[in-house]
This record gives sequence, C-alpha cells and structure tokens, in this order.
Amino acid sequence: MQIKIIEVGPRDGLQSEKTFIPTAQKVRLIDSLFAAGMRSVEATSFVSPAAVPQMADAAEVLQQISRPAGSVVSVLAPNVRGARDAMRAGADELVAFVSASATHNRKNLNRSVADSLINIEAVAELASESGTPLRAAISTVFGCPFEGDVDVSSVVAIVQTLSRIGIREITLADTTGMATPAVVRAICGGVRHAVPEARLSLHFHNTRGLGLVNVAAGLELEIDAYESSIGGVGGCPFAPGATGNVCTEDTVHLMEQLGIATGIDLDALCEAARELERVLGRPLPGQVMRAGPRLRRYAAEAQAAAVG
Amino acid sequence: MQIKIIEVGPRDGLQSEKTFIPTAQKVRLIDSLFAAGMRSVEATSFVSPAAVPQMADAAEVLQQISRPAGSVVSVLAPNVRGARDAMRAGADELVAFVSASATHNRKNLNRSVADSLINIEAVAELASESGTPLRAAISTVFGCPFEGDVDVSSVVAIVQTLSRIGIREITLADTTGMATPAVVRAICGGVRHAVPEARLSLHFHNTRGLGLVNVAAGLELEIDAYESSIGGVGGCPFAPGATGNVCTEDTVHLMEQLGIATGIDLDALCEAARELERVLGRPLPGQVMRAGPRLRRYAAEAQAAAVG
Repeated sequence: MQIKIIEVGPRDGLQSEKTFIPTAQKVRLIDSLFAAGMRSVEATSFVSPAAVPQMADAAEVLQQISRPAGSVVSVLAPNVRGARDAMRAGADELVAFVSASATHNRKNLNRSVADSLINIEAVAELASESGTPLRAAISTVFGCPFEGDVDVSSVVAIVQTLSRIGIREITLADTTGMATPAVVRAICGGVRHAVPEARLSLHFHNTRGLGLVNVAAGLELEIDAYESSIGGVGGCPFAPGATGNVCTEDTVHLMEQLGIATGIDLDALCEAARELERVLGRPLPGQVMRAGPRLRRYAAEAQAAAVG
Repeated sequence: MQIKIIEVGPRDGLQSEKTFIPTAQKVRLIDSLFAAGMRSVEATSFVSPAAVPQMADAAEVLQQISRPAGSVVSVLAPNVRGARDAMRAGADELVAFVSASATHNRKNLNRSVADSLINIEAVAELASESGTPLRAAISTVFGCPFEGDVDVSSVVAIVQTLSRIGIREITLADTTGMATPAVVRAICGGVRHAVPEARLSLHFHNTRGLGLVNVAAGLELEIDAYESSIGGVGGCPFAPGATGNVCTEDTVHLMEQLGIATGIDLDALCEAARELERVLGRPLPGQVMRAGPRLRRYAAEAQAAAVG
C-alpha cells in the first residue's frame, strides 16, 4: 500500500498560536517539510485576517516557499473570495470545509450546513474554471463536542452532495478527538458504501490518546491518505493542555514499522519538529523526535533502564 | 471479553521519581485507585533501598493501604530476600523479573539471563511453600535498546523455563517502547504456540506514541490483561522528555469505547491522575484526564473549535 501523508501543521497547527509567527519562520518550516520528502502540505488559510490573524500572511507564505517537483501546496479556502485569493497566490489545491454537525457548523462558520454546501458549490465552480483541484474537509465527522455522536446518514448526505458538485477528494476530520476504531469503521464503511467514488483521507486528533490507534484502524480499512501535524502542533479549544493533531513524525514512524513506504526522511522530519519547538518555545507532543526510531541503538555503557 | 488492568504506576511510575514521595501520598494514591474500582495494583518493590531509594518504604506502604474485597496487591521481588520481606509485609502476589535481552539483563540486574532464571526458581520455591502466587515479567521482549530486535526464540526459551518452574502468569514488557503491532503479533504468537499454558499479560510504553496502538493489537489477539500507569507516570531513561508507561485512564477509556467492561470508574481514575499531577507538581502525559471521555458534551455557548 502506498500512503499519502498530508502535513497540516502550518495551517491547522499554527492557526491557534496566539503570538504571530513571522512569515520567514513559517516559510522555513514548510521548506524543511518539503526537504524531508513530504509532498503534500496544507500551507495556510485564506480566511479573514480579522478572524484568524495568524494566517494574515497567507499570500506571502505561498510566494516565498520552495516548490520542489511533485509538491502539492494546498490551502484552506472558506469562500469564493478566499479561493480567488488563494489561486492568485499560486495554491496547487484548495480545501473547502463544512461540519457534519449542524451546531458545530453554526458555531464555526455561522451558517447552516446547507448554506455551507451552497458556498462550497460556488468555490467549486471557480476552481473548476481555472482547473484547480478542490478537496473538501468535513469536520466533526466522528463526533461533535456539542451534539455527541454524529449519524452516519448526516455524513453520507454531505458526501453525496459534494460528489454531485464534483468533489471526489474528501477528508473526514475528527475535529476534537472523538474517533475510536469502532466509530471509524462505522462512518468510513457507511460513506464508502453510499458514495463509492469518494476518495477518502482521514484527519485525526490525539485529544484522548487515540490518534494513532485510529490511523491503524484506517489502514486496516485500506484508506491510503492521512493528515497529520509536525510535532503534533495544535490543540483542542475545549481541553486546555490536551493535544491536537496526530503527530506527523510519529505517524511516519508507525507506517515505516508496518512496512509501508512513505518516501519521507524520518530524521529530517524529527529535526523539523525540534526546530518548531524552538520557534514556539515549548515542548510539543511528538514522541519519536525525543526517543528516536525504535531500532535506535544505545551503547551498553549508557544508563540502563530501571526494571519494567 | 473481560479485561484485567494491572495498575503499575505506584511502582513502575514512581520508582524513577528523584524526590522521595512521602509514604502517606503513595498510600493515598493506591487507595484512590482501589476506590475507583481497580482490583490489581503493583504497589511497590522490595528492592534494595540503596538501589531504589524511592521504594525504601515498601513494607510501610503495604501495611497502610486499604485492601478492599477482591483486591490483589502485587509487588516486585527481585530475589529471595525481597520475596521473603514482601510476603512478611502481606503482598498478595509476587512479581519476579528477567530481561529477554542478555545485555539489558546484565545492565539492569548485573547477571546473566541463566542466573536470573535460577534466582527466579529460588523465589518460586519460597512462594510455593507459602502458597503466594508468583508472576514473572520479562523485560525488553519487543526490542532492546542495546541489542535491537529480540528473537522470538529467546523469549520462548525464557517462558519455557518459567513454565517448567511452575510460573504460568507471564507479563511481556516493552521496557523502552519498541513494540509495534507487527512485533506484538510475532512475539505473542510465537510464545503462545510454544507455551500454550502461559497466561500472558502485556505491558507497553508509549515512548514512540504506539502504546495504545499495541494495546489494540493485543486485544485483537484476545490477550486479556494489560499493565498501565495512572496519568502515564513514568519515563524512559534513554529519552529525556519521552513518555513512559501507557496511561491507565486512557486505556480504560479505550476499552470502554470498544465495548469492553472494566468495572472501573473513569471519572474517579481521572481525578486520581490529576491528584498525582498535583503531588508531582508537573503535567503527566495522560490525555483523557484533560479532555474527558469522548461523549463529554459542551454547551453550544462554549468556544467553538477553529476549523479542522
């Protein structure tokens, strides 16, 4: 199985940082991810700078990053204006989004799910005119912090509409870490059954420690694309101190250990994660950047483990 | 499937704490774990106080903890002297240990694997005389930080010897977080094939983020006993900042979500984890104590998640 890893740290991770991160540091981060062999990076978001000041330099970021051969730079485009700006700035792929839960959609986007889908259709027309690929991300697919469990039928209805609009690439996102292997099987199974033409990618959060457990469950379903965040940067707005996105280098390490080639240099990825810790001035949740890959060998003169 | 969770935080977690934790606080921690419905707690270690000063109060801890009906208090007993002291102090179960890797065994216990097994046989004779159950924990089963991968045959040979000695309860321990689902399947499969009478429990570390992934792999193999540590307390001596033991409340949350009854009160467990954070004065790696169980419902007036 060939796996695609989509790095979302520069967008989903950094957007919640309170202190503005200078454009040059964002660019250096993205460049180091490409240099490590990542080929798909969600680089920024063309949202209103008033709503998300951290992403106010979206166009500058796109302008300044390196674009190695085969790289795909995707950006979040919440509406037609954002999509137009993103395409003008040179985005390779747009990502539109909607929540599976009505309450979350209203809280996050201030409109109904139906209105969000109309908005996505307008973005899709614009993208189609210029031949820019468009992906859709559906939030709170595996559970909503306001509504609880989300019906498979709600998710299916949204994916069906997106498919009718012409969007085949669908990211199912676990916005606040509510997915479990059982829920992943139920939702993905239902969507695949109802909309077999959809190409699914999965986006998990580690809020309750189950991020990689759910990635492993996705792999068992032979889903071949996963979003993750370098160092595990990101958070959960409801749970101070809880972690956010699944960590990229820990995901790549898991893939390697399962015999799945990713084409990514794990050491370089760990160095990028450590550099991001230096930029942010705090430890990030990633584990492999500290412990090294499993077969890292220690000299027998090193401190032995205590029992256990 | 009925799952047994063995709490090892008071021993495996606390033993690496540099500052001595007052006996009363250790006792309160263990009491709160029993009160939360845990029935199996590895409470302390009867090692030399010179080697592990944190466990110098082993006998006092056993004397002072509550012993609710059905509870099993196990303790680490590295040798005949420790085993005798442990039984005198009222331990319900002894745990003897040996490493699967020769280098780790020599570093940790300063003897060969063969000598460790002779030592365990002496402990087993003593335990048998007084009718005290004895379990054996084998370290570095899923990988050794000095030697790398560990042969299934080395693990099998040790389990066969333990079985000959009369020890049926075997904990396979991932001392430095080197297990992966593939390695778990290979080692557990080999051991079960060669020594079908062994009753296996699994002890994982989250050093590379794979702790719960490996628990899930173990559940798929229908292994029904897991060791874990409240709050995820513990560390990895080789990787400063890396986490240690799999976290108990996150494990219980996963079990609940997989429809497996544990009989444990998750809220009470999370409160015990938070109390331990207060005692230690630093955040522990546990996630569910911060985020709550997956269906914790937030008021729609709460801060909405940013996109993603």
